[in-house]
Amino acid sequence: MEQLKERIRRDGRVLPGSIIKVDGFLNHRVDIRLMEELALEFAKYFDISRITMVLTAEASGIALAAICAQRYGVPMVFAKKAKSDNIEGGLYQSEIFSYTYKKKVTQILSREWLTAGDRVLIIDDFMANGEAVRGLCDIVSQAGAELVGVGIAIEKGFQGGGDRLRAMGVNYHALAVIQRADENGIVFRGEEP
Amino acid sequence: MEQLKERIRRDGRVLPGSIIKVDGFLNHRVDIRLMEELALEFAKYFDISRITMVLTAEASGIALAAICAQRYGVPMVFAKKAKSDNIEGGLYQSEIFSYTYKKKVTQILSREWLTAGDRVLIIDDFMANGEAVRGLCDIVSQAGAELVGVGIAIEKGFQGGGDRLRAMGVNYHALAVIQRADENGIVFRGEEP
Repeated sequence: MEQLKERIRRDGRVLPGSIIKVDGFLNHRVDIRLMEELALEFAKYFDISRITMVLTAEASGIALAAICAQRYGVPMVFAKKAKSDNIEGGLYQSEIFSYTYKKKVTQILSREWLTAGDRVLIIDDFMANGEAVRGLCDIVSQAGAELVGVGIAIEKGFQGGGDRLRAMGVNYHALAVIQRADENGIVFRGEEP
Repeated sequence: MEQLKERIRRDGRVLPGSIIKVDGFLNHRVDIRLMEELALEFAKYFDISRITMVLTAEASGIALAAICAQRYGVPMVFAKKAKSDNIEGGLYQSEIFSYTYKKKVTQILSREWLTAGDRVLIIDDFMANGEAVRGLCDIVSQAGAELVGVGIAIEKGFQGGGDRLRAMGVNYHALAVIQRADENGIVFRGEEP
């Protein structure tokens, strides 16, 4: 998606360790107008008319997922990081490794809000190693629900998470795939010199 | 707001310890259509034309804040819980006590995304002891920005956070104030028998 790539080129910054900072428009300060454009773009790749919900993971995917759910006319559900007092039993659980927090995190989702009849579109802001999305796919599978697709705003193509989903045959699409990010700048997949 | 109270009466549940579970429409599975109604309702209480941003706290307020920001045509910024690798220096910080997690949490917000010229509307899904909002107000103050108002979907009136803000003269409004929640059900402020 050219508009997103342009925004990344303009406002993104690369920190040591190939950390890509896009917190001016995506995951700290959120440009809601841009999120609306991303929601429209995802609709080109997935059969939106079939979905019953948008699913994401706490926390940074919630804004994008909410705008997508609004556009598609379905509820948005987000998996939580365990363990708050406000969730009792009856949970789907999936254990993932958070590279951001450098520890294991348990994603939880109430069985009340995802059932075998659901057709789920997973939306997240970022794909790196893919642990968050792997956990969400696992939860969809535990529920016996149908995974309609996985839509990601920005994929760090060099960290493998997106390619693993592609290899598994998941209906996966990322709107911008960054192939390289270092002191020389950001290079998108398909635009390597 | 009658529509929200009706939804709480219909779908809310009270767990031991006066925990109010509204995760079917507000903070786990999110009814986006209802969030749009809440955004319209907040606009009756705050001077939306003046605000430059909607501010909330990670994580459960993000969906509501995103829909509000969309409606008001401004960006949405959320304070994060420390400490991820993706945020370098240059932060506002505020230490709060999370009753949900029963520990101190540091809220952080990049100085890039909130400055003295900003006029801020704080939006959150829930007000109990008010620690999350206290931290956000503190951050707005650190920035020298103007606090236009604080809008909350559901206040637990018996936990004092909302009344403390009222006593401080903050332009504060909650759309539903729960005065009592126990095995006999939920009673809203102003509707006590």
